[in-house]
Amino acid sequence: MKYQKNNLPEQEIIHQYLKKLNFNKKGTFNFNNDAAYLNLTNNKYKFAVTTDTISENIDFFKNDNPKSIAQKITTVNLSDIFAMGANPHSYLLNLCLPSYINKEWLKAFSNQLKKNQLKYNYYLLGGDLSKSNKLIISSTFFGYINKNLEVFQNKFNFNDDIWITGNIGESKIGLEILKKNILLNKNIKKYFINKYLYPTPCKLGPKLAKYSSSMKDISDGLIGDLKKILKNKAGATINLKNIPLSLNAKKIINSKISINLQNLLNGGDDYGLIIISNPMNRKKIEKISLENKIKISRIGKIIQKKGIHFDSYLNMDNFKEFDHFC
Amino acid sequence: MKYQKNNLPEQEIIHQYLKKLNFNKKGTFNFNNDAAYLNLTNNKYKFAVTTDTISENIDFFKNDNPKSIAQKITTVNLSDIFAMGANPHSYLLNLCLPSYINKEWLKAFSNQLKKNQLKYNYYLLGGDLSKSNKLIISSTFFGYINKNLEVFQNKFNFNDDIWITGNIGESKIGLEILKKNILLNKNIKKYFINKYLYPTPCKLGPKLAKYSSSMKDISDGLIGDLKKILKNKAGATINLKNIPLSLNAKKIINSKISINLQNLLNGGDDYGLIIISNPMNRKKIEKISLENKIKISRIGKIIQKKGIHFDSYLNMDNFKEFDHFC
Repeated sequence: MKYQKNNLPEQEIIHQYLKKLNFNKKGTFNFNNDAAYLNLTNNKYKFAVTTDTISENIDFFKNDNPKSIAQKITTVNLSDIFAMGANPHSYLLNLCLPSYINKEWLKAFSNQLKKNQLKYNYYLLGGDLSKSNKLIISSTFFGYINKNLEVFQNKFNFNDDIWITGNIGESKIGLEILKKNILLNKNIKKYFINKYLYPTPCKLGPKLAKYSSSMKDISDGLIGDLKKILKNKAGATINLKNIPLSLNAKKIINSKISINLQNLLNGGDDYGLIIISNPMNRKKIEKISLENKIKISRIGKIIQKKGIHFDSYLNMDNFKEFDHFC
Repeated sequence: MKYQKNNLPEQEIIHQYLKKLNFNKKGTFNFNNDAAYLNLTNNKYKFAVTTDTISENIDFFKNDNPKSIAQKITTVNLSDIFAMGANPHSYLLNLCLPSYINKEWLKAFSNQLKKNQLKYNYYLLGGDLSKSNKLIISSTFFGYINKNLEVFQNKFNFNDDIWITGNIGESKIGLEILKKNILLNKNIKKYFINKYLYPTPCKLGPKLAKYSSSMKDISDGLIGDLKKILKNKAGATINLKNIPLSLNAKKIINSKISINLQNLLNGGDDYGLIIISNPMNRKKIEKISLENKIKISRIGKIIQKKGIHFDSYLNMDNFKEFDHFC
């Protein structure tokens, strides 16, 4: 694709494309101020706050659909907010824009942001625009959570259950298909590439908060994130047969096209949640899963022996590269 | 200077250099979580929030002292917080780091951040690290302000006074000296270059809030920022003799070395405050100035006639380029 230089004025970008995202909230001053007011009308709540940056050539590519880039900056942040047990409140956007960004790009990008805002109920509070050689997007998301609730990422007891929401490895398969141009049925290919380009967060965090010793989103692969929770202070047993996979992912693994379960357990960008929970909460978690029609799978347990240990279903051939994690 | 590739691990950067900046506050989870909790213990307050990005080759240069870069990311944000009438609370830091960033750089950078935190009493809440070709720093600052107070940037009445804090043009002169290598006395040169490299915000915002129709920091030059307040809905008369200049700046202007008052009124990066205030508040503002030993100068008035109009002291020769502002 050939890119032209578009020197869009800052005020045009703000008022034509971003203004609609403030949902007419008073504290945003219609993006005329250099800052905004952020307030909780209900004294019962406090804020959860997270910030993440995505960059051209690292987290996405220049030719990617701007809708996909908008989806990624939203999901990387929203999944952290949900993992804190919080509900989305608002966000800030720092856009470092190269000159190839044009009106069509901004329209598609901002419309996808708006779609997510409407879906999860939050608004754009403000932000900052600057110029750069490469597209770099930072965003800060605010959520609200009951003042007395606190969700940790490193708190657990031995024998706690390990649960995960959704399926594992969908996005990783999409990335591998794009990178290696694997020959596959067109629909299956499209299914996985979509999972990679349009990741979605798991909104169940606030409902699971009070049953969680720890909760974390899966952004660096299940095993990597589980190790971040454990911090080498305990270990985990994982029942491989309980690892949730989509029918399509099972097909991919069974066809042995250079992607195996091991890759999927290490693959990032799932954006589901890992929940560490007392076994007493099993019924409650299963009820939340049923009521919300979102898969939550109990995949293992926290144990005293350090490292990640797989149960008898482990096919050693597939897992030899796991050594360095144990 | 020759730069080496330093591939410092994320955890080392966080725990060796950034950890000290959290001042042991509970909601930061010692930077082990992907997100943080942000709370006001006093129900009387709400948050003010602002975010700004500074980039290599635009706002600073690769060879600049990391202390100067830390000072700039702090001041661009803090001056917005003060202009909202808020007191600093905490901040988030998004660092996009190129491989030339080494331990010495991080040490000097983080120490300067800490110095400002101690001076103005706030802490680092969390952030995000990523890699990039050029150094790009985004930061989000939180301040707290009484729930019932609201400081605008575009509210005023005809006949309101226009006040500014500190001196005008100091940083602009520093930048011109660096760009044009102007021949000057060594000490005067150092004085202005320091003003450019180490800008400071004006902390009087919270004290001036209740006497302000509008308040704004000066980041794009006095005239540019005044025009942003007016939004072409009114005009202003400016008494040139009341424009506050340091003794050194007066020397520079009088010596006619390619920098005149016009340049200084248009020069950015002052980071003082513009306050628009009812004439009834004059005594109160003068008292705040005296008590805090910070210069606050009444430089003009809001008038009905649009544009920026200079009084009889205007030397037309110096101001011919002002036409496009009127």
